[in-house]
Order: sequence, then structure tokens, then C-alpha cells
Amino acid sequence: MNKKRTEIAELGEFGLIDRLTEGFTCHHASTLKGVGDDGAVLAPTEGEELVLTTDSFFEGVDFDLTYFPLKHLGYKVVTAVVSDLLAMNARPRQLMISLGISSKIPVEALEDLYEGIRFACHEQQIDLVGGDTRASMTGLVITATATGAAKKGAVTYRSGAKQHDLICLTGNLGAAFMGLQLLEREKRVLSEVDVPEPQFKGHEYLLEKYLKPRPRTDIIDVLEEEGIIPTAMIDLTDGLASDLMQLCRSSKCGARIYLERIPIARQTSDLGEEMHIDPVVATLNGGEDYELLFTVPITMQEQVMRLGVVDVIGHITEEKTGCYLVTPDGGEIKLKAQGFPEQEA
Amino acid sequence: MNKKRTEIAELGEFGLIDRLTEGFTCHHASTLKGVGDDGAVLAPTEGEELVLTTDSFFEGVDFDLTYFPLKHLGYKVVTAVVSDLLAMNARPRQLMISLGISSKIPVEALEDLYEGIRFACHEQQIDLVGGDTRASMTGLVITATATGAAKKGAVTYRSGAKQHDLICLTGNLGAAFMGLQLLEREKRVLSEVDVPEPQFKGHEYLLEKYLKPRPRTDIIDVLEEEGIIPTAMIDLTDGLASDLMQLCRSSKCGARIYLERIPIARQTSDLGEEMHIDPVVATLNGGEDYELLFTVPITMQEQVMRLGVVDVIGHITEEKTGCYLVTPDGGEIKLKAQGFPEQEA
Repeated sequence: MNKKRTEIAELGEFGLIDRLTEGFTCHHASTLKGVGDDGAVLAPTEGEELVLTTDSFFEGVDFDLTYFPLKHLGYKVVTAVVSDLLAMNARPRQLMISLGISSKIPVEALEDLYEGIRFACHEQQIDLVGGDTRASMTGLVITATATGAAKKGAVTYRSGAKQHDLICLTGNLGAAFMGLQLLEREKRVLSEVDVPEPQFKGHEYLLEKYLKPRPRTDIIDVLEEEGIIPTAMIDLTDGLASDLMQLCRSSKCGARIYLERIPIARQTSDLGEEMHIDPVVATLNGGEDYELLFTVPITMQEQVMRLGVVDVIGHITEEKTGCYLVTPDGGEIKLKAQGFPEQEA
Repeated sequence: MNKKRTEIAELGEFGLIDRLTEGFTCHHASTLKGVGDDGAVLAPTEGEELVLTTDSFFEGVDFDLTYFPLKHLGYKVVTAVVSDLLAMNARPRQLMISLGISSKIPVEALEDLYEGIRFACHEQQIDLVGGDTRASMTGLVITATATGAAKKGAVTYRSGAKQHDLICLTGNLGAAFMGLQLLEREKRVLSEVDVPEPQFKGHEYLLEKYLKPRPRTDIIDVLEEEGIIPTAMIDLTDGLASDLMQLCRSSKCGARIYLERIPIARQTSDLGEEMHIDPVVATLNGGEDYELLFTVPITMQEQVMRLGVVDVIGHITEEKTGCYLVTPDGGEIKLKAQGFPEQEA
């Protein structure tokens, strides 16, 4: 965070928005009017469907500002909504950011947040077109709303999985969860120390997966190049167990996934061992991986394997058989969703 | 609020959403997929442009649950975003509601909130298509995001006002502000009383304007029937002074409005007198009126007057002359915007 401290009141209502939205550029012809009116105006593109999604982040629930840099937070908020769009097989187009802020927060802190948002917008080619900034009596609240577009017929729902379909997963799981555990541990330890020196060496990978996760836009590119439209797709935000169960519920089917096929990074299992946390728990219930889980017909097995960027971790079964994790010794564990705090409506 | 108390945990994550979104119907063919996936899916309509807008409401800042019934709050949140769409000359289409809630809030309270949302959705013909429900450490936070549609070329911006244009206003101003003052007064008085009996008789009009304001969809209908496309438009949420100044800033112009032409309801001035609040202050800075302010070329004066539902309160001037309120004695008061708490980006 910068050293200088400017009060929001100094800039006034017009000045703040001008300053925060400076340097944002628009990438899409469909953005007719961005920031600065009662609403943004978008032109429809013939032959496309529009996807609309929203995600909120609450201080004290979804992030802890004692260790979460605001620049990373801005980046992560964009990742979260873009990931939702990708899970529908759509490409990002427009973004709105709504903030609830204490009037005590300095302008420089908001600039850091917007620097992360701007970086992500550029990387993801998404246009900031508006939002709403209000006072909050309590902590920082950020709501991101995004539009995306997909060719007509290419939108992928959670509901299309069929019996015998293969369950495919991108990346590895549990790293973001372990990154969070590490940050929480150092926070506890250092709260009792005068000169805090957090021990993060060797854990950079886990920290980045938690603090600055990248959405899997590359996967949507690869699927398109190969002409693969998944039968169903969801992004992993609540943990594999909960998200797979949501997909199965929407598709009215069951699933069997195999523990030894779920990729877990070495850094994840190493820290898990050190902190006595079962990496399977991190994988099944950790959440915030922002990886994609999708299904394809079994006839596409070879084609999917050839991609080199996904793992087939199981297959879809009949609804009545439920959702199970099969352990290497042949044991079967019935999956359970973790409840609150998040439900997407 | 209902007497029964169901904990959110009892329903689980799927059950809560199912229960809250029960009974919502979709009105628009453009809604391809509503609640229940990573995002909503919309079909573009040929010859139309899409408007996107968002509004957040924070407990303790934007509403006080000690006197704000949740059903009304749900209705008002929809009014706020629909009003933004109308201000762009667009018709409501799709709605997303994001909530930040304490896990202690009973399901029945959320059902009351959604009853108000459902009522407004039906009345405004807007389709609930999704959202996000998360835990909040603190108070209730509601973010509404809406899409609207207008025929290509019919979208009205804040930026189109030209010198000599007439400034037109719907409805009367200051009533919502006085309704809020009344509620706050009764809250203060009754906090010291064992059996509270709030004195609201005769003030129903003011209370309704604050607690359950209606968006001016009727005005958009009338303008369309008469073939009038305003040169600029904004909805009145921050107060006439601030909102007129935003319009002038976007249009690079000044304005002169005449105090005696601004309609103030009898109930507003009566209570203002009783509470020693200048109704002019309520009018200029009160906000939350959800009326529309728009400009038309001076050649349309007769046509606008004939509508019978708007008042011409002034005219647009050169930018360098600034924004002024002219009092009946010919005095000129330079308008000032009230700063924080709200800026729309």
C-alpha cells in the first residue's frame, strides 16, 4: 500500500470515480457506454448468447485484510466472476464493480484495489463499465458482476451430464486451501511477536494459488480448438465434493470419482503433512481452486486425454447410486457438501 | 415478519435457494436460463440495446431494520435498479439479487424480503435470474443488478442536454426524505418508552414514498406513446441538486431551475413545518425520490406540458454559468452536491 493518505472527502464524489477508473480501456465493440451514467449500454452480437453472473466478497468472511494485499484482492474478485463465465463456456466481456467502503479508508487503498482489477481486466480482456460505491458501516464489501458471450448453442450448463460421461478436471486441487491455512497460521503466530517475520519461503506456489488465482481461460481456448463442447461444466469454488454434487443434482445423476486420479500438488501434500491436515480434506472441501470440472461423452476419452491439460477423475452414474469417492483400497466414501457460507442462486 | 423461525442450516445450501426463489415466474423470451447455474443466459433481441446497472443497500447506512419491513425493503431494492434502467429509457428485463446475511437471520425473514422482491418483479415484469448468497459478519447487504432493453437509438444518456433545453421533472420531491425523518424521530422517542405507539397517522403518504417507492415506468410509457426521446435523463436518488449537477457535468452545461416550479407535496411541507425542516432542503438534498429528471428541446414545450405528468422546472444554460436555483424573490443560489455516501460509477 502507498504511504500517502488521501481522504475520500477530499476528492468528492466525482473525483473518486474518475481517479479509480482512470487508465481502464475497453476491448469490445459491444461496449457502447461504460462508466458514467445510470447504467452501461451493450450492443448485442448476432449469433451470440449472453451470460450474466455475480460474486460478492465480504471482509472477515471471504478475505482478511491483515494479510490479503488489496491489489491481489482486486485481481481475485475478477478471477471469481470470469471463472463463472468460463464454467458456462463463455468469454468475458463487461464488468461492474460495486464497493461498500468505510469513509475512513484512504483513496490510496482503493487505488491499490483498482490496480489489481485493472490488471485482471487487461489480462482477461474484460471491460469495466460501471458499478456503485457506497458507505459501509463495517468492513469492505466487493460485488463483481460480469457479462460473457458464447456462440449460440455453445453455452454449457451444469445440467447436461449423462450416465457414463467422463468427469474431467483441470489443474490440481487443495493448494488455495493450504495457502489460506498457512496465512492463518502465520497470523496467529505473529500476533504475539513484536517484529513479525512470516515464514513463507518455499510456499510461494500455495500463496499465489490463494491470493492471486488465475481463471482457466486457456482451457476454454483448448476446448474450442479441439471442437469439444462439454456436456456439463462447473467451476470449483466450494470444493470438489460440493461442486460435483451441484453438477450431479442439476444433471439428475450420480458420480464415482477415484482418489488416486485427483491431482494434488507436492507443495500441498508437504504442507498438509507439516500442519497435520489431510490433503484429501483440502481437495474435497477446500474450495477457491477456480479450476474447471466438466463432463464429456465416454466416446471422447482419447480426445480429452490428448489435450494434456485435464485429468479424467471418474464417471457419471445413475442418479439413485449417489456421489462417491473411491479410495485406492477400493473403499467408497459418500460425498457430503459443506453447507454455508456460499450458495449460488 | 412471520412468527416461525427456521435456521438457514436446517435447509442447507440447495434448500434455501429453492425456497426463496419458489413462485418466481419469467416474463421474457430473452431469459434462456435463470436461477441455478454458474450464470444466467440471455438471448439478444435484434434491434435492441442492453442496459446493465447495479445498486447496493447496506444495513445501518441505507436502511434501518428497526422500522424498515423486509417485504418493503425487497420491493424498494427492485425499484432502485428499475429506476436506473428507466433513466436510460430502457425497460426492465432480468434481475440478480446478491445477499450478505448473518447465519443467525431466520429463513422466514429472508422469505419476507423475497416476497417483496417477487411482488416487484411481477409488477415490473422483470425476471429473477440469479445471484449469490454469502455470509456477512455484520449486517444485511443487498446488491441488485438488472438488465434492461431499449430499441436501438432510444437509449437516453446523461450527456445529451443542450443549451436552452427544458428541464422536466416527474412527481414531487422531498417526501421520501420527510418519511425517513419521521421514522427516525419515532425511533428516538420510542426507544425510551416501554410500550411503543408510533405516531404515523396522517403521514401514510410520506412513509410509503420512503418505504415503498414505485419506479416511474408510467413515464417511459407516456414518453414512448408521444414519441418523445429526452435529450438527457437521470433518476433522482441523491437529491435534485446532486443529480442535476451530474446531468450537467455529463452534458457539459449549466442549469437554472426555479424554486416555485418544483412540486412539493402538502404532506411534505406540513411535516417540514412541524419538524422545523426546510422543505427546500428536503427537495434539493433529500434523495431517494426515484422520480425522473430529463431534458427536451425547447421546441417541445407544448408537447411536454400536454402530457400532464411532468413539470418544467427550468432550462439548460452554458457550462460556464454553473447550476443555480432561482428563488421567488429573484435570488440565485449556487447548487452544491452532497458528497459521500453514494457515487455511481
